[in-house]
Amino acid sequence: MDYHHEIQPPLRTIMTPGPVEADPRVLRAMSTPVVGQFDPAFTNIMNETMELLRRIFQTENEWAFPVDGTSRSGIEAVLASAIHPGDSVLVPIYGRFGYLLTEIAERYGAEIHTLEKEWGTVFSPEEIIEEMDRVQPDIVAMVHGETSTGCIQPLKEIGHACRARGIYIVVDAVATIGGVPVKTDEWCLDAVIGGTQKCFSVPSGMAPLTYNERLGRRFQARKKVERGIATEADKQPEAPMIRSNYFDLSQLQDYWGPRRLNHHTEATSMVYALHEGARLIVNEGLEARFARHRYHEEALTAGLKAMGLSLFVEGESKLPVVTCINVPEDIDADEVRKILLGQFGIEIASSFGPLHGKIWRIGSMGYSCRKENVLAVLGALESVLLYAGAPVNPGTSQQAALSFYMQKEDTKAAAEV
Amino acid sequence: MDYHHEIQPPLRTIMTPGPVEADPRVLRAMSTPVVGQFDPAFTNIMNETMELLRRIFQTENEWAFPVDGTSRSGIEAVLASAIHPGDSVLVPIYGRFGYLLTEIAERYGAEIHTLEKEWGTVFSPEEIIEEMDRVQPDIVAMVHGETSTGCIQPLKEIGHACRARGIYIVVDAVATIGGVPVKTDEWCLDAVIGGTQKCFSVPSGMAPLTYNERLGRRFQARKKVERGIATEADKQPEAPMIRSNYFDLSQLQDYWGPRRLNHHTEATSMVYALHEGARLIVNEGLEARFARHRYHEEALTAGLKAMGLSLFVEGESKLPVVTCINVPEDIDADEVRKILLGQFGIEIASSFGPLHGKIWRIGSMGYSCRKENVLAVLGALESVLLYAGAPVNPGTSQQAALSFYMQKEDTKAAAEV
Repeated sequence: MDYHHEIQPPLRTIMTPGPVEADPRVLRAMSTPVVGQFDPAFTNIMNETMELLRRIFQTENEWAFPVDGTSRSGIEAVLASAIHPGDSVLVPIYGRFGYLLTEIAERYGAEIHTLEKEWGTVFSPEEIIEEMDRVQPDIVAMVHGETSTGCIQPLKEIGHACRARGIYIVVDAVATIGGVPVKTDEWCLDAVIGGTQKCFSVPSGMAPLTYNERLGRRFQARKKVERGIATEADKQPEAPMIRSNYFDLSQLQDYWGPRRLNHHTEATSMVYALHEGARLIVNEGLEARFARHRYHEEALTAGLKAMGLSLFVEGESKLPVVTCINVPEDIDADEVRKILLGQFGIEIASSFGPLHGKIWRIGSMGYSCRKENVLAVLGALESVLLYAGAPVNPGTSQQAALSFYMQKEDTKAAAEV
Repeated sequence: MDYHHEIQPPLRTIMTPGPVEADPRVLRAMSTPVVGQFDPAFTNIMNETMELLRRIFQTENEWAFPVDGTSRSGIEAVLASAIHPGDSVLVPIYGRFGYLLTEIAERYGAEIHTLEKEWGTVFSPEEIIEEMDRVQPDIVAMVHGETSTGCIQPLKEIGHACRARGIYIVVDAVATIGGVPVKTDEWCLDAVIGGTQKCFSVPSGMAPLTYNERLGRRFQARKKVERGIATEADKQPEAPMIRSNYFDLSQLQDYWGPRRLNHHTEATSMVYALHEGARLIVNEGLEARFARHRYHEEALTAGLKAMGLSLFVEGESKLPVVTCINVPEDIDADEVRKILLGQFGIEIASSFGPLHGKIWRIGSMGYSCRKENVLAVLGALESVLLYAGAPVNPGTSQQAALSFYMQKEDTKAAAEV
């Protein structure tokens, strides 16, 4: 093998539900030289990152920081730190990532109760609250935006119901954070885990999360500081020790907090990236950012429908940042994706399990969520479908999106005069 | 707080045992635009990374890939996947990172046996083999290069003894990989975990590791593929399920292997960085790289001794890439470090627990291990010590190192004529 060349991956238009295109300013921030983990210049960046994350999670929680790993590392950290072996955990499932929550919780010794909903639909709050009252779980764990089906689950009433019953609620908001409102405090969520490689437009490798004091106390009771760095003030845990060292949030918060307890060596460049990505979100403004995602979703879906395609999910349950399309009859879904990537350099996604080959998923997230990308994916998809002999209306998809953009921009320009 | 500026950390000279300065070519590679995780352009980079890692671990093992997390995530992945609850694990300890192995193994349900050696010394193979025969553990877990004390533990005889007895041996080579020989196959090591932020000169955030078929079979017997993506061919585990999803190496190897089982979303930019860092090591040549680390160690220790300082560890047990210095009497060790950083922009390290305030640790690792850094740290340390009133010989430390470099270069130039 020849190792005399640097990596040279092609430039892609990435319209999947993640990883999406990283903001160029984030990539630039990552190339900043490294400083030491306890250098005041770095701990200051850590503190700023926490403050930025609080704003994005819409929370007053003290604790908002990343776990050094991909999104599921954050989910595992929260579940590992929260679940005592034998705890009862209720997982309402409406797609693949609901299963993931059961997979993780089971490994940490939970007794799992699931409630399943047909893929492509979401729960009414009552369905979950009823099951909650029947099962009386210690913890409810669920997904906010299910990328596998393109659905979004309203959480406000469920969060309030958990709080009223003294049940902890843990939410996977990997797909929604930074693109769709996630109101940690207003919805009474005890812990929320976000992702970076989706609406955040930061490369995969960090799992920002937040949790409140109520759940934090549960973590603290299980705290055991490592031998070799523990002091006499560090007691033995009062509750069962957390079953992972890497995912022990009681130690991690002391690393991110003023004590600066030595744990891992923070992933400097990924923190730079997360800081920059978070800064760009806060500077864009949360409401403006959510509106931008809605705006391009409208153009995208108008184009898809004009072409003659039907959506797998529409209406209130549709996740604004992921659009799932029913694959037309007799069309090889993977072959279409292959031509899109190989000939147009555009990536869209398949789905998992029962939906593989049945739907395509188009993401419109973060930096990828912009006009030229929406127009490009529509034009290319129409072209590949025509090539494959699918019954689509030629020349219609881009026209629909283009009309949408031109008209909106004219209206905006007129209003500004 | 003002978020209208990008991060702007200062440029530091980093002479700690990690994180050290990242190679500028690695930083540049990280700013490469992201591609999708199953894009052939990316899976090809993943395959190349595995091949490069095999060379660096000096192994023919099929499996050599990173866990997405900092170094200790790799250690935890191997221990989580290897340890069945109730297994007996022997941990010979000669510094802080030995304790870390017990901390992790304990959380995964192991019965821990420790054997401790005074900090600053290492074990004879016989001591460990004797204890092995007494305890008859399932697994031996130990550290190769102990950065907390600056010691290196020879492993060849211990590895062979484990193999002969059917005991698994897991080695933390976080501090040594890429700077000091780590001979996975020749020493009969079943699993070895490296780090990126030390001799690799890649920012923290990936944990490259390797394991052989013998240990791989143990992982496979515990394999459980996630619901939602499992096929009918995926059986239930024959042995106790691995207690972590994120650290389940049986699933991770199917993500890195030809099956490309969907697990996490690979940390694209960190893989770019790891690929580039590994490529630079392979292109420099392992032997040349190890010799370079020895060469600068010689200059550094010559300078420190000329100044009148004494080393905490010398001789065969000294880790070539970390030099520990006894703090002169009545000198405030942390204050000296603070002035070095604040006035000279140079970072050196303290140590942990009983050694805090007693020794300084100077790393000479990877990209940080170069002439100008060695000269800079010697000059600055001498200056700060004089300022603090320590009895050092003025003007001697840089002279000793400079003479070493000038003489070596003259000899080399003469040989080339």
